Amino acid sequence: MRLREKLERGVYSEAMESFTLYKICRIKNKWITDAMSEILCTFLLALFVYASGAQDILTRGASSSPSGRALASGVGLGLAVYCGFNASGACVNPCIALMFCLTGKLQWKKWPVYVICEFIGAFLAACLTYGIYNELINEFDGGQRQVYGMNSTSHIFTSYPLDGISKRSGFFDVFVGCGLLTSTTCMLIDPYNAKTASGVIPVALVFLLYGIIMSFGVHTGAAINLTIDFSGRFFAYIIGYGSEVYTRADYWFWVPPVACFCGTITFVTVYQLMIGNHLPMDEEKE
Amino acid sequence: MRLREKLERGVYSEAMESFTLYKICRIKNKWITDAMSEILCTFLLALFVYASGAQDILTRGASSSPSGRALASGVGLGLAVYCGFNASGACVNPCIALMFCLTGKLQWKKWPVYVICEFIGAFLAACLTYGIYNELINEFDGGQRQVYGMNSTSHIFTSYPLDGISKRSGFFDVFVGCGLLTSTTCMLIDPYNAKTASGVIPVALVFLLYGIIMSFGVHTGAAINLTIDFSGRFFAYIIGYGSEVYTRADYWFWVPPVACFCGTITFVTVYQLMIGNHLPMDEEKE
Amino acid sequence: MRLREKLERGVYSEAMESFTLYKICRIKNKWITDAMSEILCTFLLALFVYASGAQDILTRGASSSPSGRALASGVGLGLAVYCGFNASGACVNPCIALMFCLTGKLQWKKWPVYVICEFIGAFLAACLTYGIYNELINEFDGGQRQVYGMNSTSHIFTSYPLDGISKRSGFFDVFVGCGLLTSTTCMLIDPYNAKTASGVIPVALVFLLYGIIMSFGVHTGAAINLTIDFSGRFFAYIIGYGSEVYTRADYWFWVPPVACFCGTITFVTVYQLMIGNHLPMDEEKE
Amino acid sequence: MRLREKLERGVYSEAMESFTLYKICRIKNKWITDAMSEILCTFLLALFVYASGAQDILTRGASSSPSGRALASGVGLGLAVYCGFNASGACVNPCIALMFCLTGKLQWKKWPVYVICEFIGAFLAACLTYGIYNELINEFDGGQRQVYGMNSTSHIFTSYPLDGISKRSGFFDVFVGCGLLTSTTCMLIDPYNAKTASGVIPVALVFLLYGIIMSFGVHTGAAINLTIDFSGRFFAYIIGYGSEVYTRADYWFWVPPVACFCGTITFVTVYQLMIGNHLPMDEEKE
Repeated sequence: MRLREKLERGVYSEAMESFTLYKICRIKNKWITDAMSEILCTFLLALFVYASGAQDILTRGASSSPSGRALASGVGLGLAVYCGFNASGACVNPCIALMFCLTGKLQWKKWPVYVICEFIGAFLAACLTYGIYNELINEFDGGQRQVYGMNSTSHIFTSYPLDGISKRSGFFDVFVGCGLLTSTTCMLIDPYNAKTASGVIPVALVFLLYGIIMSFGVHTGAAINLTIDFSGRFFAYIIGYGSEVYTRADYWFWVPPVACFCGTITFVTVYQLMIGNHLPMDEEKE
Repeated sequence: MRLREKLERGVYSEAMESFTLYKICRIKNKWITDAMSEILCTFLLALFVYASGAQDILTRGASSSPSGRALASGVGLGLAVYCGFNASGACVNPCIALMFCLTGKLQWKKWPVYVICEFIGAFLAACLTYGIYNELINEFDGGQRQVYGMNSTSHIFTSYPLDGISKRSGFFDVFVGCGLLTSTTCMLIDPYNAKTASGVIPVALVFLLYGIIMSFGVHTGAAINLTIDFSGRFFAYIIGYGSEVYTRADYWFWVPPVACFCGTITFVTVYQLMIGNHLPMDEEKE
Repeated sequence: MRLREKLERGVYSEAMESFTLYKICRIKNKWITDAMSEILCTFLLALFVYASGAQDILTRGASSSPSGRALASGVGLGLAVYCGFNASGACVNPCIALMFCLTGKLQWKKWPVYVICEFIGAFLAACLTYGIYNELINEFDGGQRQVYGMNSTSHIFTSYPLDGISKRSGFFDVFVGCGLLTSTTCMLIDPYNAKTASGVIPVALVFLLYGIIMSFGVHTGAAINLTIDFSGRFFAYIIGYGSEVYTRADYWFWVPPVACFCGTITFVTVYQLMIGNHLPMDEEKE
Repeated sequence: MRLREKLERGVYSEAMESFTLYKICRIKNKWITDAMSEILCTFLLALFVYASGAQDILTRGASSSPSGRALASGVGLGLAVYCGFNASGACVNPCIALMFCLTGKLQWKKWPVYVICEFIGAFLAACLTYGIYNELINEFDGGQRQVYGMNSTSHIFTSYPLDGISKRSGFFDVFVGCGLLTSTTCMLIDPYNAKTASGVIPVALVFLLYGIIMSFGVHTGAAINLTIDFSGRFFAYIIGYGSEVYTRADYWFWVPPVACFCGTITFVTVYQLMIGNHLPMDEEKE
């Protein structure tokens, strides 16, 4: 009955209700469905980020390019948001979840759950990427997992600063990159601002991530999603890259997470105080 | 009368009803119109996939690039979906049709018809591509159709695993690639999820296919549409590439179809059980 | 009064009605406004096509690429359609205008006016492009306008078949390319098909042209808009490239126009007979 | 209460009203909110323009490309417009603000305020870009800021004409580039033309800027936003590039601003007189 109504509104004129996956095992507890949604969305984003990096790095650019890799990562973000749009809201990033809390779109008590699920999702994506690219990685580095040098592959899963770059520049770069990501997402979903038609926001996010990676991607490889950086690094550690994934570049590993949170708080506050809070509300127009 | 109404709603203020192709030879049987639509849509997609591959391969990258070829293939998918949106739904892929059946958007008994039409459409596209690129192929390989080597051109029409890659990695790659294609399409058209504005879904599909090819295209050339792979291989066989198109890489030819179906069932089930089935229905909000 | 209403619906809350260009010199004759619109739209498209070609050719790829040039041409098409959307409909191509007539969206008696205006618009764009790129062309060819050879620049303005390609292959390539352009445009604006949200069609057209150029651009440089090809060739002739622009490749000049018309009629008829004419009309659903 | 209503219309089902940044410090004075919005929007655009240029120049193309840089700049424009859409309207350019005044969308007396804010925003973006890319610039030029030569970096912040190009060609190029930018923006937001769905205009602007840079970017590096050019040049002057930033190319610095204004007035007038003023108004249809 409900299915039929749904299909009449849609493009397909007929349907059998016999054997389908449709609406079986329905769960109504928002905590559980939000958690599952956040795991799957982060998994999707991280899968595209890791795999597009692997395709570029392992073919030494023959099958991709910095631009192609950036756009594929952006596509991952767009798809992740389509995926969880009406479920958990698809934060896919503890910083976006923090922005949701700061602007009153998410309860503070739910934040830890979102963060844990995001780490799980990104870790699963790292596992799957490694499963697919296992053979090519072996061919690339001769079976010897390396963190340094021409044949290193650990930057598929995590980030390091460019050689010769100080921690200060790296911090600042991630600070701005993640701040831009969260503040522009904040303005995109602001219900009093551009009032974007439904389904267009994920397309805008594809370009947003592309723009950030092509503008602030050179110092650190755009380590602006701390979950992808952190879970990927942990995965690389346990898969055999050794503790150098943590010690390289003078214990760089703690910089992206800290920079991400600082950037988020700074940029979102600036947007809200300069534009967001002063936008005309609907009844004022009338 | 109806035409005038239609045009008044549209952008064009005047029209003659004299000599036009408009609504002549109208057929109302859904089986026939769906079949014709599915042939034409798959033809469109396959034409862009084959031809963009030919332009890249035959000019050895001078007139294209991996990124450009991926985006052109994505455009083919987007156009195919615009083409059949309100007719057959533009599955253009037996796996998408399977996903439609699994989620109750298509009757199971229509599935075989869709699949047959898709094979026909892709085969016609291979014929047309060969007709256009005939001379350039001759120039490229000296008139000697080859499946192996620098001057081989059979990968315009079909796929092989990368040299040195095992069947297991290839299977796994197609499994994930096709699974992502069908599950993300499933979430895009889910009427309870992002509720995308009409006409935006095909644009999202352009990016979706681009992202998959740039992230999971290195092992097998993204053999994620089994019709394009299968019909193209059959066409290459009868056009003179010989039985090597089937035997190359240890009878690789059966892997993509099997991997596609397995990936589709796995990923669509995961999406439905983790997100799709728990989405709030409209009356619950009220 | 009307302005105020307009602005209240828009995003801007205040406006002076004193000195503006708004709605002065209003003309209501549809023939005149359609003609002006068609000139300006074709001018816009042709300007992007010529200039993006010039930037690629004159820098020998240093400031552009086949992919970048194709996307810039697509952007020109998208902007041209935004420009004339609610005026003449922005055909910008005699073949699109023919498709409009064939499907009842344009009166047959208006077709010659559209075509003449399109030739004028493209010619003006060629003049402007030459004005801007004059110095760079002089630097490129040493002031000696050439139709053949490494330093030839006439393919900024018009098309020739690839060396070694027969007229038959070139004809066939343009036939399919232009047919795809017109038939996919036909399905995009079909009011009974995807019902695309307003303003999304031009974005889809950006990708459409990109896809065609990246898939069918190698034989002839995608000579799929006969106005741009014809007016550009005529401009090159009078500016001093000599009669070789017409005689090169065995009087190739007449092939693109003929192929465009044949392709349009074939592909649009196929779309209408296979899908367009059988789409469900609105009252049938009720 | 209002927040809850807002969220019920949105995608998120629950929210706490306790600690949020939401609607605190509300300012209702349109002059102040417009000024803040214009500063932040121009800052956003300029940040992407400067930083994407820096990433391309400082890695000598290894991490970017002309095409990637152009698209990243376009993304900056799109985001800036999303940011200020419902606040100041996001002119981000004195020429766009002039177009707003000319077509009655902005009061003339507000124009100077917009212009001053735009210069401030672009200047702040130049500061931030320099802060981030400081170390890489030092590595690139050995700490010696240069305006000429292989290791010059001043073209991150501002523009010069290509070597061997006369001021006339440069002027003409900027004239057309900026004219296209403002006139196509004018047609995109024209409420009687394409009536683009909300939120799609910024996506179209991404492509618009991309197209202009890839078609008219070779003579001057697309100096079509005079604020970015002027503020960036001033910043380069005070940061130690010396007065050569003004004297290079025979005092080129004054050309882009003048060319931008001339181009804007010419192209916007042409659009309004050829199409804009003759568009059918809504009541005429009824």
